[in-house]
Amino acid sequence: MKKEKIKVGILGFGVVGTGTFKILEKYSDMIRNQIGTDIIVDKVLVRDLTKGRAIHASEKLFTVNAEDILENPDIDIVVELMGGEEPAYSYISRALKNGKHVVTANKELLAKKGDALFEYAKDKNLFLGFEASVCGGIPIIKAIKESLSIDKITKITGIVNGTTNYILTKMSEENLGYDEALIEAQAKGFAEADPTADVEGFDAAYKIAILSNIAFRTNVDINNIKREGITGISEKDIKEVKSTNKIIKLIAKAEIVNGGLEAEVAPIVLPLEHPLASINGVNNGVLINSESVGELMFYGPGAGQMPTGNAVVSDIIDIAKQVAMTCAF
Amino acid sequence: MKKEKIKVGILGFGVVGTGTFKILEKYSDMIRNQIGTDIIVDKVLVRDLTKGRAIHASEKLFTVNAEDILENPDIDIVVELMGGEEPAYSYISRALKNGKHVVTANKELLAKKGDALFEYAKDKNLFLGFEASVCGGIPIIKAIKESLSIDKITKITGIVNGTTNYILTKMSEENLGYDEALIEAQAKGFAEADPTADVEGFDAAYKIAILSNIAFRTNVDINNIKREGITGISEKDIKEVKSTNKIIKLIAKAEIVNGGLEAEVAPIVLPLEHPLASINGVNNGVLINSESVGELMFYGPGAGQMPTGNAVVSDIIDIAKQVAMTCAF
Repeated sequence: MKKEKIKVGILGFGVVGTGTFKILEKYSDMIRNQIGTDIIVDKVLVRDLTKGRAIHASEKLFTVNAEDILENPDIDIVVELMGGEEPAYSYISRALKNGKHVVTANKELLAKKGDALFEYAKDKNLFLGFEASVCGGIPIIKAIKESLSIDKITKITGIVNGTTNYILTKMSEENLGYDEALIEAQAKGFAEADPTADVEGFDAAYKIAILSNIAFRTNVDINNIKREGITGISEKDIKEVKSTNKIIKLIAKAEIVNGGLEAEVAPIVLPLEHPLASINGVNNGVLINSESVGELMFYGPGAGQMPTGNAVVSDIIDIAKQVAMTCAF
Repeated sequence: MKKEKIKVGILGFGVVGTGTFKILEKYSDMIRNQIGTDIIVDKVLVRDLTKGRAIHASEKLFTVNAEDILENPDIDIVVELMGGEEPAYSYISRALKNGKHVVTANKELLAKKGDALFEYAKDKNLFLGFEASVCGGIPIIKAIKESLSIDKITKITGIVNGTTNYILTKMSEENLGYDEALIEAQAKGFAEADPTADVEGFDAAYKIAILSNIAFRTNVDINNIKREGITGISEKDIKEVKSTNKIIKLIAKAEIVNGGLEAEVAPIVLPLEHPLASINGVNNGVLINSESVGELMFYGPGAGQMPTGNAVVSDIIDIAKQVAMTCAF
């Protein structure tokens, strides 16, 4: 059975939701050419119908009732971009219960309650895509889940939080103090008004948990990840490290040690020759060590409307190929 | 219909063929767990039955008759690892004609005659996997074909030939002349006795042609790629470049300029801060610029038994998931 149109409902219309919408519109011809089907955004859940939007769309596109998406029999794929644990968890569960495939960028939710959602999706033979949840535009989830699926990953080391990497880069390159660098990051939209989740390493811990779960086929308890942020790093620390031709980076790491998984987030002093040492600003980079391949590195934008939107769309396309096509490929 | 076993025939049993065999044996449990089916190497085409092998296998595994694979109704997937144009082209065509999926690492063949093979595979609804043909262990083909399928790639810049990168690294780090560095590369097995294909840039040209074909959805004529190798680079050139804090790398590049594709292979002087400047030895690295994602870099082993074997196996697994499963996923 070949569907003529695949309909998508988007929960949440912030930066990434808007990017996803824009990409699906802008590249609609490319999508039709590739999968032989249109992908249409049917409904978007927003908080406030009266708010101005950066896109041109019919008023009928927007709703404040999640039911219009979750209980809508026309919608094939639900894209959750609200963030946080609730109501995201309930909404995703309900979408799966109603036979809808799901794509999410929600790292906090997946790190804390991913197991239950993945198991439920598997039981119902539904796809739960999460490429956008880690490292924005870098296709790290697909690389681990598919390209390295028959390799044994031994270690993951990454700069997975753009906000803290931006702050550390500013401190190092412009000799700014932590507070000054943070204010600049906030002014540029790279840090939130309350920066705790980034600067204390929670965000990086969620991401290394998600990567560990797929790379080591385990369920990491987020509370077992040692976590130290960057708030304790002084201008003096940065200066001392620089004088020895090294650099401080906030590193998320997970590794098999004596048969058990050890995961941590901490500021680490790296030699300048280290592959992660030259990853600056809001960029992310991930090194993967494995038995067959050896060492791979992926580097790119860790966030942003269009890079993360592309990650969401790449999951939608993977699902659409399955929904739209017959068994042959 | 779920198959109990998926049978593979391998054409050619050199470095990559042996790696593919080893990975399929070593990780057979992992494969069964993931796809619910065994993948069995049923037959391997070799030139000489009496040659000693680095693996333990029944004598019945090997054959000198390609028919035992190409005309064998039990075999689902044919893996072509012979290299060169013929008989590889005829064998792949025959495998497809007989309804078999194909995986190949043959960059020369794909760069010269890929169009015809891909079209034929598409007509017959068969998979023609080629992850192993470019950059060994780096999953660059999947990244372009899937993760960036709905993005517009504007430029690809890469170090895609490990042999020349090894020679240039040696010349730069140890102040060796070209001839000395080549001899060392040959002694380590990183360069062939006749190194022409690598040092004159043919190998890199094949690879940038393949990447361009999928990234820009075009058919690059290999003769339209400007090509310069590294044989003209002297110790003096290297020294001069070093004294200005730069480095020479053999760069393969493809880019849309005024609506047309321009592709070339040439030694390029890079500033040390360039993301490709620090890719040393036999490693490869590819930078991709695109509209939505911006800039991505992939870095890793460009060749080798196990990394390239992993790339072959990742294609086999993608096919097996389709062959083995029913429509649901």
